[in-house]
Amino acid sequence: MSASSPLQVAVLLSGGLDSSVALRWAQREHRVRLALSFNYGSNHGSHELACAGFQAESAGVPHRVIDISSIAQHLDSALLNGAAAIPAEPYNEENMRQTVVPFRNGIFLAIAAGITESAGCGGIVIAAHSGDHAVYPDCRESFMQAMEAAVAAGTHARLHLLRPFIDQDKAAIIRLGVRLGVDFAHTYSCYKGGERHCGVCATCRERKQAFRQAGTADPTSYEA
Amino acid sequence: MSASSPLQVAVLLSGGLDSSVALRWAQREHRVRLALSFNYGSNHGSHELACAGFQAESAGVPHRVIDISSIAQHLDSALLNGAAAIPAEPYNEENMRQTVVPFRNGIFLAIAAGITESAGCGGIVIAAHSGDHAVYPDCRESFMQAMEAAVAAGTHARLHLLRPFIDQDKAAIIRLGVRLGVDFAHTYSCYKGGERHCGVCATCRERKQAFRQAGTADPTSYEA
Repeated sequence: MSASSPLQVAVLLSGGLDSSVALRWAQREHRVRLALSFNYGSNHGSHELACAGFQAESAGVPHRVIDISSIAQHLDSALLNGAAAIPAEPYNEENMRQTVVPFRNGIFLAIAAGITESAGCGGIVIAAHSGDHAVYPDCRESFMQAMEAAVAAGTHARLHLLRPFIDQDKAAIIRLGVRLGVDFAHTYSCYKGGERHCGVCATCRERKQAFRQAGTADPTSYEA
Repeated sequence: MSASSPLQVAVLLSGGLDSSVALRWAQREHRVRLALSFNYGSNHGSHELACAGFQAESAGVPHRVIDISSIAQHLDSALLNGAAAIPAEPYNEENMRQTVVPFRNGIFLAIAAGITESAGCGGIVIAAHSGDHAVYPDCRESFMQAMEAAVAAGTHARLHLLRPFIDQDKAAIIRLGVRLGVDFAHTYSCYKGGERHCGVCATCRERKQAFRQAGTADPTSYEA
């Protein structure tokens, strides 16, 4: 979903694996003016944000952390309720659903649209990928298409919404990241939010599996 | 744009005239579970929010004020830069454009969607009206349609977005408010943000004119 000519863009950068690759992809395809991270009070926020800072700095991109943690008390999600609420088992529909933060991508994209328009940019890059689709409705292409129409209609610049990985899986993203020189040791995925990746929560299992499928050495230090 | 059967809804309540009427409209047509206001660091925020509190309390509706003032520093608008930045003249394209807060309604609606889904409600009510359309792209029906598709696609509950006034002007809203018993003395419009309405900024002029057009006594105490 690449725009036909290079745009000035803001990249949503969580500090996870996918958005860290998206940042480098955007540098190859567009002109990256800003990397935007959100502190939304999640269990794993501090480690994610530290990785986001590392990735932005090593890419030479200005990094803004937007504090919306005051919203967290109004949102219902295990991801906002401490590590003990995160199940130590592979993803299934039930435990994925617990970790949904209602309309999280919608909230991130809307705020990013306001900031991107204010900064005089023409597009936003988000790293949502095919593995997110099953239970997270705001990661699906149907949502992205509607949200793209909303950010276009609702801004003077008629912003674009770029989602380069929407049809790709995490292994493909890792392979691209390797080619683009992403330092995966400084990306963070664990929903438990500990110093090291726990290795047993659903996101850690997904991360391990994706490195195996990509045929790439996994630099992550897991507890288990 | 009323849903066919009553919904449990959250109402966006700025404390202005339009949303105060929307709250009473929603009570007549739906079941109002929440009124949501945003502190986004605007010049006129404190007076607006006080009026929002009054309106919610007199309607007997739980009121939540969501603090997103930390976002303001990243948004470019005269509305966020103090009273001196607000021109004392009727609306024209140039001065309306200065007061645009980029993608404000998109940001409000996205956060409201997350909160509304978390609260188990089925819809959001917003009071955008025909007079807002000219320069504010995120007040137009084309934006509302896209945003409705986004909040539906991006939530498990497939939320509705109700915009009862989208084809009405401010005078019609006032007439409806009179029938619904809205106390307009406790609504606030002035973009200067003073204790009393200035009477000369574009929103004050629009407010005066709407009361005149509605043929209703204007209870507002204006400085000029």
